[in-house]
Amino acid sequence: MKAYLTRRYTFPASHRLHLDDASESENQRVYGKCNNPHGHGHNYALEVTVSGQISAHGMVCDLGEFDRFVNTEVVSRYDHANLNTLPEFAKDVPTSENLCLAIFARLQKFTPARLEKIRLEETRKNTFEMGNMSL
Amino acid sequence: MKAYLTRRYTFPASHRLHLDDASESENQRVYGKCNNPHGHGHNYALEVTVSGQISAHGMVCDLGEFDRFVNTEVVSRYDHANLNTLPEFAKDVPTSENLCLAIFARLQKFTPARLEKIRLEETRKNTFEMGNMSL
Amino acid sequence: MKAYLTRRYTFPASHRLHLDDASESENQRVYGKCNNPHGHGHNYALEVTVSGQISAHGMVCDLGEFDRFVNTEVVSRYDHANLNTLPEFAKDVPTSENLCLAIFARLQKFTPARLEKIRLEETRKNTFEMGNMSL
Amino acid sequence: MKAYLTRRYTFPASHRLHLDDASESENQRVYGKCNNPHGHGHNYALEVTVSGQISAHGMVCDLGEFDRFVNTEVVSRYDHANLNTLPEFAKDVPTSENLCLAIFARLQKFTPARLEKIRLEETRKNTFEMGNMSL
Amino acid sequence: MKAYLTRRYTFPASHRLHLDDASESENQRVYGKCNNPHGHGHNYALEVTVSGQISAHGMVCDLGEFDRFVNTEVVSRYDHANLNTLPEFAKDVPTSENLCLAIFARLQKFTPARLEKIRLEETRKNTFEMGNMSL
Amino acid sequence: MKAYLTRRYTFPASHRLHLDDASESENQRVYGKCNNPHGHGHNYALEVTVSGQISAHGMVCDLGEFDRFVNTEVVSRYDHANLNTLPEFAKDVPTSENLCLAIFARLQKFTPARLEKIRLEETRKNTFEMGNMSL
Repeated sequence: MKAYLTRRYTFPASHRLHLDDASESENQRVYGKCNNPHGHGHNYALEVTVSGQISAHGMVCDLGEFDRFVNTEVVSRYDHANLNTLPEFAKDVPTSENLCLAIFARLQKFTPARLEKIRLEETRKNTFEMGNMSL
Repeated sequence: MKAYLTRRYTFPASHRLHLDDASESENQRVYGKCNNPHGHGHNYALEVTVSGQISAHGMVCDLGEFDRFVNTEVVSRYDHANLNTLPEFAKDVPTSENLCLAIFARLQKFTPARLEKIRLEETRKNTFEMGNMSL
Repeated sequence: MKAYLTRRYTFPASHRLHLDDASESENQRVYGKCNNPHGHGHNYALEVTVSGQISAHGMVCDLGEFDRFVNTEVVSRYDHANLNTLPEFAKDVPTSENLCLAIFARLQKFTPARLEKIRLEETRKNTFEMGNMSL
Repeated sequence: MKAYLTRRYTFPASHRLHLDDASESENQRVYGKCNNPHGHGHNYALEVTVSGQISAHGMVCDLGEFDRFVNTEVVSRYDHANLNTLPEFAKDVPTSENLCLAIFARLQKFTPARLEKIRLEETRKNTFEMGNMSL
Repeated sequence: MKAYLTRRYTFPASHRLHLDDASESENQRVYGKCNNPHGHGHNYALEVTVSGQISAHGMVCDLGEFDRFVNTEVVSRYDHANLNTLPEFAKDVPTSENLCLAIFARLQKFTPARLEKIRLEETRKNTFEMGNMSL
Repeated sequence: MKAYLTRRYTFPASHRLHLDDASESENQRVYGKCNNPHGHGHNYALEVTVSGQISAHGMVCDLGEFDRFVNTEVVSRYDHANLNTLPEFAKDVPTSENLCLAIFARLQKFTPARLEKIRLEETRKNTFEMGNMSL
């Protein structure tokens, strides 16, 4: 039988929501306080779900290997970072939706189990998901 | 790529579980302490999930517009209310299942993104979901 | 050495904040939505702290005995209740402050350990404490 | 309309991850600290999701009956237990994946509503799911 | 009898820990990743505790008045802000310790109840308190 | 002004509550399910509070140094351990009260800030504190 494993990671980061192609008033209207010129930040929580058959070791995949992959690809990149300074947000606004896109692309390279879904909490009131949503 | 956005809202309310068409002993058996004559209450937490393509603004939909809609349609209606006094529970018992039905019907009118699912926490031990459950 | 033990209990209940001696407009001004005529409710969480020397059994007090006492004196009384119908709120408004007073008085009868403090969560945003506050 | 009900249960238990058929060095490599000879433990949290049409009583199923079933079949079996001493882990390693398998098999006998999914939290960082994952 | 009331507020903000008077290597050693040049951020949670006698209304103080005061003095100032750009951090490093100092000074002007303590969560692992600590 | 810093750590461990000097029936009566012969376990959470004047760096103490101390002295010792096999529980029963005593003694050697209090969560319902309780 297939099982699903979800691991939770946290990292603080800052961002400013601002679209260079839009006028100041449009930026204000669309992003509100998130458009404040000097930026603000969040304690992001990322949950990554993978699936697989249960091995003879009784596991979906090796947790140590999984953690090393996610830490190298995602956590170390965004931890204590200002998202606006990263190349993936040179053109795209660092909303949580676009951050999900960037994270999902990086995690898809994991092969020992099947990446199913990611869930990104920006605040307790605001959560974003992407991937195999029949999950 | 499609993204899913979930917003969390909270409201306290009271209710009494009682079916007028049933005998007192049946009410007691089915609803137990929830049938206490003077009612009791909960801090309800409602999570609403919508989906959509990510816009050029990097968003599934405008959060301010979404919040105004949910607050007008749902939160302001049930916040600090006694559910039994509302028209939708004139005949139907205000269980969390029926409250989900009433909330889901109201939220379906949201057009900027697709309503996918609602999740209603009555207590930390008791949660109800409705909608597109292949989510 | 002295140790402090805190146990957490939860119970849903309803109440209406209304002072019979005050005018309708004063009630509205002071209690706002909490003055709604049909009441509303909360999932209350109560934390009770007691202290004592650590016994040869390695314990501040017997947990089973402690739970039976708190359940009999407090939880069973307020669980699924409408606070306004109880004798202790015949005259006093069932705010969380007054509920703390009523609970503290009942818990002081516990003798196997020393009652130090109670903490009552009405919502995650609203907490009340009473007792030995040099704790 | 169909509704989904999730109930949450908790139980502490201990386990040691060790595969008798594997060498000591393989056990160390695969299970790390979880292979420590005398075992360790967790506060497990189990969430069980069932679905059904909403009855005239406004409910997916009778909560008392549901709780009695889950407590008898699962909670009382694993609560305060050392998983390695149980027959289902005589051969299989008591990982959370295998514990999910054992729990899911036991819960499938519930008939008043349809078992959909289980979710087992080993720690806040480590969660396992099984069942109808188009949920 | 005296009662203690604690209200919880949240605000996201960003900061960079950097002491202008110190060398780059000292800044790196003392602040580590928090010294990253472009800053990072957090979802701060602030809990404010006040005390007072319980009034005839059954309350320590008027919650609406309390919230307006804290929102005006503190939340609106730090919400979605970059702490380094504020005058109180022109010279002092915006650590949570110094942020507590600034917040406590602002809240001491509240007169309807006695300010006792503030508690600032930077992350779930990192909390700071200040004030009357015999509380 | 003095500030208080609290750091949170977690570690899973197992234990069996059993007093060698007591009869089997006394052990059963006092410890109940916690006396089960093969033990059980918990995800312990430990919060350590220290205090100090705020330095020119804006800090109570260096967080890296603090974490290394607590991890070396406490977390690495109890993480994934069976408490009953440790020398400090050769004679004393590994209740959370006695575990607090052992942890507090080890943490008192920290000199860069003043150890004030520890708080040990065994489960969400069961918490133990020790130290300077006028805190």
